[in-house]
Amino acid sequence: MKEYFPYNAENIHPGFSIDCVILSYHKRKIYVLLNKFYLDGYWALPGGFMFANEDADSAAYRILKMRTGLSDIYLRQFHLFSDPKRTEMNQHLDFSRLEAQMGSQIMWIMRRFVTMGYYALVRYDDIELVSHDNEQPGWYEVDKLPSMYSDHANIIRTAITTLRELWEYFPLGEKLLPEQFTISNLRNIYEFMLEKKLDRRNFQRKMLTDGVIQEVGRKEGVRYNAPVLYSFINKKI
Amino acid sequence: MKEYFPYNAENIHPGFSIDCVILSYHKRKIYVLLNKFYLDGYWALPGGFMFANEDADSAAYRILKMRTGLSDIYLRQFHLFSDPKRTEMNQHLDFSRLEAQMGSQIMWIMRRFVTMGYYALVRYDDIELVSHDNEQPGWYEVDKLPSMYSDHANIIRTAITTLRELWEYFPLGEKLLPEQFTISNLRNIYEFMLEKKLDRRNFQRKMLTDGVIQEVGRKEGVRYNAPVLYSFINKKI
Repeated sequence: MKEYFPYNAENIHPGFSIDCVILSYHKRKIYVLLNKFYLDGYWALPGGFMFANEDADSAAYRILKMRTGLSDIYLRQFHLFSDPKRTEMNQHLDFSRLEAQMGSQIMWIMRRFVTMGYYALVRYDDIELVSHDNEQPGWYEVDKLPSMYSDHANIIRTAITTLRELWEYFPLGEKLLPEQFTISNLRNIYEFMLEKKLDRRNFQRKMLTDGVIQEVGRKEGVRYNAPVLYSFINKKI
Repeated sequence: MKEYFPYNAENIHPGFSIDCVILSYHKRKIYVLLNKFYLDGYWALPGGFMFANEDADSAAYRILKMRTGLSDIYLRQFHLFSDPKRTEMNQHLDFSRLEAQMGSQIMWIMRRFVTMGYYALVRYDDIELVSHDNEQPGWYEVDKLPSMYSDHANIIRTAITTLRELWEYFPLGEKLLPEQFTISNLRNIYEFMLEKKLDRRNFQRKMLTDGVIQEVGRKEGVRYNAPVLYSFINKKI
C-alpha cells in the first residue's frame, strides 16, 4: 500500500480499486496467488488503486507487476464487486495500528470502494514471484483459502464460477499447463472446472479425436512405461 | 439527471457511473435504446449514478426503470469503461448553460467518471417506453447511431462485440424474438451476430436438427402459403 501514501487521495481515482485473481495449476491442485496482508493475520488478492491519469486495465497490470513481479499475462475483467458493506467487512482489522504507522491520511481507505475483479490463468513454472516491501506473494489452494481480507474469498469464488460457466466452450487448459503434459494433468483441470469426475479413457479419446491435443513422446530417462506426453494442437486461444 | 441534484455529490458514489446498452430486434434490424440527452443535439445511453448505500446492479435496475420504464429484464455487466479522457470527450457540450440552469453544484459531473457497462436483450413488442422529465427514450438502429454523448458509441460497439464473441456458444435469439417467429427473423439475428450471410435452407435445417426450434403452424388469416412459424424448444437460457 505504501506506494499510494506519497500521493494523497486526490491522485487516486476515488472509491475505486482493482483486485486480481491469478490462478494456476500445480501438483493436481488449482492455486490462487495471494499476498500476506500488511495487517497481521489476513491474506489479500494482489490489488490496489487507479491513478487519476490511468485507465483500469493499465492500473491492473501495474499493480500486478508491482505486487508480484508478474507481467506479460492476459488479465480479463470479470465482475465489479460493489456491495456497500464491503468496507464494513474489515471492521475487525486494527486500523488504529495502521493509522499510528502511516498517519491519519490512511483513513481514506476506510471509505467505500467498489473493486473491479480481473482474472488470469498462468503456468506455475513460468512464474517467479517477487516480494514487495513487507508483502510476500504466494500460492494457496483455492479449496483451502486462509483468512481472507474483506470479500476477497467471494471474489475468488466468482472468478472460478465465471471460468466454469465458460469452460465447456472456452477451455483454457493451455494457459495452465507446460508445453508438454500428461493426460492426467489435463484431466485434473477439466474435472475441477466441470465439477465432475471424468472417465480416463473417454476423456483421452475425446481430446485426441476432437483434435485438441497430440502425442509428442514419453517422459525421458524413466522406465519403459513412462507416461505419454501431449501438447496442444491449436494454439489459437 | 435531475434526480441527483437534491442530493449533493456526497450521496453519490464518487467518480462512478452506470450505462445500459438495451438491444432489441425489429423489422430486420438491431436497435439500441437511447435517450435524447438533456443537452441539445446529443443522445446518450440510459445511465446514471450509484447512491452511497446501493450496489451497482441495484443502481443499474433503478436507473433503467427510471429513465425508460423498463423492469423485469436481465442486465449483465460486460465491461468497465475507464479511459481517463472520457470526460474530455464532452468538452464541446455547453456545460455553462447547464450550470446556469442547475447551479454550480452540477460541475461535479465534469470530474472523471469510470462507467460500468451493462447490456440486455429484450423483445421489442414487450417494451413500453416511458418518458422521464424532458428525456425521451427511443429505439435507434445500431448501424445508424445519431451523435452520441461521450464514449457511448464505443460502449455500444463493445457490447455488440461481446455478444458476438459469445454468440456461437451462447445464442440469445429467444430474448429478442416473440413466442412465435419466422425463420427469416431468426436468421437475420444470426447473420447480424455472426457477421456473415447464412444459407436459408442450411440454417433452417440446422436449427431444426439441432433441436433449437420447432414448427408451430403458419401465420393465421393469410394466404395458403403463409410463412411457417417456429418457437424455441429449450427455454433454458
